[in-house]
Amino acid sequence: MHENDGFRRLDRQECLRLLATAPVGRVVYTRQALPAVLPVNFSLDGDSSVVLRTSAGSDLVRAVDGVVVAFEADDFAPAHHSGWSVIVTGRATVVTDPAEQQRLSRTGPRSWAPIADPVFVRIESELVTGRELVGAGARTA
Amino acid sequence: MHENDGFRRLDRQECLRLLATAPVGRVVYTRQALPAVLPVNFSLDGDSSVVLRTSAGSDLVRAVDGVVVAFEADDFAPAHHSGWSVIVTGRATVVTDPAEQQRLSRTGPRSWAPIADPVFVRIESELVTGRELVGAGARTA
Repeated sequence: MHENDGFRRLDRQECLRLLATAPVGRVVYTRQALPAVLPVNFSLDGDSSVVLRTSAGSDLVRAVDGVVVAFEADDFAPAHHSGWSVIVTGRATVVTDPAEQQRLSRTGPRSWAPIADPVFVRIESELVTGRELVGAGARTA
Repeated sequence: MHENDGFRRLDRQECLRLLATAPVGRVVYTRQALPAVLPVNFSLDGDSSVVLRTSAGSDLVRAVDGVVVAFEADDFAPAHHSGWSVIVTGRATVVTDPAEQQRLSRTGPRSWAPIADPVFVRIESELVTGRELVGAGARTA
């Protein structure tokens, strides 16, 4: 699936609305000069950022704190050859402010897996892009 | 979700078996020095590579031909807090051999979206890693 007539570009508000429906997204970053990707649970903090919860000692924290990453979520319906994908690009930072940590502990993401020594990582939604595949492939198949 | 007791590491054969069940995966690469990700249809060419079909003039082809990329597919069951993800890391190259192009036209990936001036991109499966989340999060939730 690539940019062509089968796709409709989504605006920022549509992207954020769809992102909020996804239970899992994928952090895309660079690790030891190689492209890397990790599926994670997440939540949106208003329309300004994506928040993850991970272990303070994880490879992910070491690799992404202070650098620009991408974050992707999608949902596709194979039977209809349709679906959407949204990509947030922005700087990732570990949340260190105690009041902010407390707030996110109440309102932030829950992980499906147990996490030792958890911290929150915020990805600023500086650039939000998305597109919807409206089933052109199914019609022409 | 991160490396911890909730996960089981998958061996290469398990990874390839699961990959073969996924209709969509995600190419992870670098575009203009920023992390980038694109969902695509794909197929496996034996156990040696992932094959995509895209437009010869696409940004993706320009960005990935000759460089190491990651390719990720996953499937999660929110109700059970379980699922799997597999990541292939290796060099991407545009297929230029005419016999190989013909073979892939018959046996290779079909895209859900129409593609102008299609080419095949092969990602060598040099490194194949995967893990299964076995629902530990659901048990402790």
